[in-house]
Amino acid sequence: MTIPVSGYAAQSFEAALAPYQFTRRDLRVDDVALDILYCGVCHSDLHNVRNEWGGATYPMVPGHEIIGRVTAVGAGVTRFRAGDVVGVGCMVDSCQHCMPCAQGLEQYCDDGATTTYNAPDRHDGTTTYGGYSDRTVVSDRFVLAIPEGLALEGAAPLLCAGITTWSPLRHWKVGKGSKVAVIGLGGLGHMALKLANVLGAEVTLFTRSPGKAEDARRLGAHHVVLSTDEAQMAARKGRFDLILDTVPFVHDLNPYLPTLALDGTLVLLGQIGPLGPALSSVPLVMGRRAVAGSLIGGIAETQEMLDFCGRHGIVSDVEVIRMQDINGAYERMLRSDVKYRFVIDMASMKA
Amino acid sequence: MTIPVSGYAAQSFEAALAPYQFTRRDLRVDDVALDILYCGVCHSDLHNVRNEWGGATYPMVPGHEIIGRVTAVGAGVTRFRAGDVVGVGCMVDSCQHCMPCAQGLEQYCDDGATTTYNAPDRHDGTTTYGGYSDRTVVSDRFVLAIPEGLALEGAAPLLCAGITTWSPLRHWKVGKGSKVAVIGLGGLGHMALKLANVLGAEVTLFTRSPGKAEDARRLGAHHVVLSTDEAQMAARKGRFDLILDTVPFVHDLNPYLPTLALDGTLVLLGQIGPLGPALSSVPLVMGRRAVAGSLIGGIAETQEMLDFCGRHGIVSDVEVIRMQDINGAYERMLRSDVKYRFVIDMASMKA
Repeated sequence: MTIPVSGYAAQSFEAALAPYQFTRRDLRVDDVALDILYCGVCHSDLHNVRNEWGGATYPMVPGHEIIGRVTAVGAGVTRFRAGDVVGVGCMVDSCQHCMPCAQGLEQYCDDGATTTYNAPDRHDGTTTYGGYSDRTVVSDRFVLAIPEGLALEGAAPLLCAGITTWSPLRHWKVGKGSKVAVIGLGGLGHMALKLANVLGAEVTLFTRSPGKAEDARRLGAHHVVLSTDEAQMAARKGRFDLILDTVPFVHDLNPYLPTLALDGTLVLLGQIGPLGPALSSVPLVMGRRAVAGSLIGGIAETQEMLDFCGRHGIVSDVEVIRMQDINGAYERMLRSDVKYRFVIDMASMKA
Repeated sequence: MTIPVSGYAAQSFEAALAPYQFTRRDLRVDDVALDILYCGVCHSDLHNVRNEWGGATYPMVPGHEIIGRVTAVGAGVTRFRAGDVVGVGCMVDSCQHCMPCAQGLEQYCDDGATTTYNAPDRHDGTTTYGGYSDRTVVSDRFVLAIPEGLALEGAAPLLCAGITTWSPLRHWKVGKGSKVAVIGLGGLGHMALKLANVLGAEVTLFTRSPGKAEDARRLGAHHVVLSTDEAQMAARKGRFDLILDTVPFVHDLNPYLPTLALDGTLVLLGQIGPLGPALSSVPLVMGRRAVAGSLIGGIAETQEMLDFCGRHGIVSDVEVIRMQDINGAYERMLRSDVKYRFVIDMASMKA
């Protein structure tokens, strides 16, 4: 453990993030070392820092939307070399031999993927530290190539918000003619609008905020439905092949289910925990509809998504902040006061 | 309305079923008239008679698992003739021009299929009366051919319990190598075991009753899991491609969801209404699992199922009762005291 790193960490579930000096491992044969340029701020960072999902260990260095420049590679690494611009997302390792891993679905690894922070490293048992820091070391199998021409600060959120919405769009075979709705216009929601639009779908945003309509259309929505307006909701009965639900807190799914078409699916991406109020089985049984969930995406499909974004010039709409401003950014994120993702400029660490 | 009929009806939501004389329409050009030989007793008959799902109109003549012999056909009917043994299931009409109808999914008709009882006829507005009666008249498009060689009393429940389990087995592409579980061993559950087994699946029954294991194996289950035993449940983590949930009352789905494999689906077939206790999104998100519903099946796939049962000699395990014993049968059904379906022998009406 000899690579010195400057980062920001939480020392407990009630502590603000503060400067933290630590070290990272010397390079293993398959490792890539990078200087971190940008790191996106995900709502799950906040959940984890405050131990709202359980399992938090401290000090915790969050951050899993990492863009960096390679500084060195291990002896066995051939895909990357010093100077390359690369990305690291929510995972840094997995068992590599179970059925999901063999299918490129490392996020569903039978043994549990190793998350980019707050997880025990599979080899030495140390706790992983994330991207709120100036340097990191990651196995090459979990390093992504960033296509040329993308604004790097906007590319950072592709590593979580991008792949989390891309994976269900692809799994449920969205393309030309698909009717897709997105619930919620935040970090995930705005990426869902962009990606579904460029995939050729007819895209609708469900929102509780009338003020978001104009922005939604700019981002790719063809229609905006005020979800609190019963008449607007009733007019969409039986319409959508796929609904991506990006809302990260408990909310009532029942108003949305009848808007699914026969055989349509609502996919939960944001809320982890008990659903409430009670889901009615009536729209499920009466239209063979489904409620499903989806977790980020595999490494191969993350690269596929990045390449797609490179070809189409898609990045996240971001507000760049200094590392020192992270605690204020968390407070604003709690009020949904961000369009649409905070991204930390790691050059601020040197300031 | 000139065809005299003897049946049993409920006159209110709290009344016992009692003899009721009524008439049925003269044959339209597409109608088939039949003498009813057998009618199965479905749990939904009880729900409807007692208005537990709302929308009940009285007098109500239940019954939608009908086996009969054709006595006459309308001038335009070519598929059936007097003497044929035929079946009628849960539907007797639909709009015939919407997308679901065009796809042979009349049960999901955009205008609502006309149910075999307790629904307004689409042509004359009269209320449909079901199979607890000695004669009926049904449009030929909703009349099924019963393959030769099947015991007719055992064939009656195929028209609801059979197709309700067959349709999701086919929709979710169950075949050789599939791992299927069935929750609950009643009218639907015992058909699910038989059909999934002959389709080539590895079949598991989830039950709360240790005493049902031997019977479940006879019916087609390869494994029986006591759902109240946490160790047995934990041992099935990530196992099933499809779970058919046949339980007709509120029950906790959460113990079953982790037993689904990656991309597995639990299909609700029996419980109509709010699910409880609150469903957790964790197993959905962490394994891209889904909770879906399914409603009976279309007419074409009902015929497909009947032909399959004819080839493989599959019928329901039934207990034949007299029409006069229906109220006692309802009480026994409420106690799950039937193996596995009551079927009314309509010859008893003449006794």
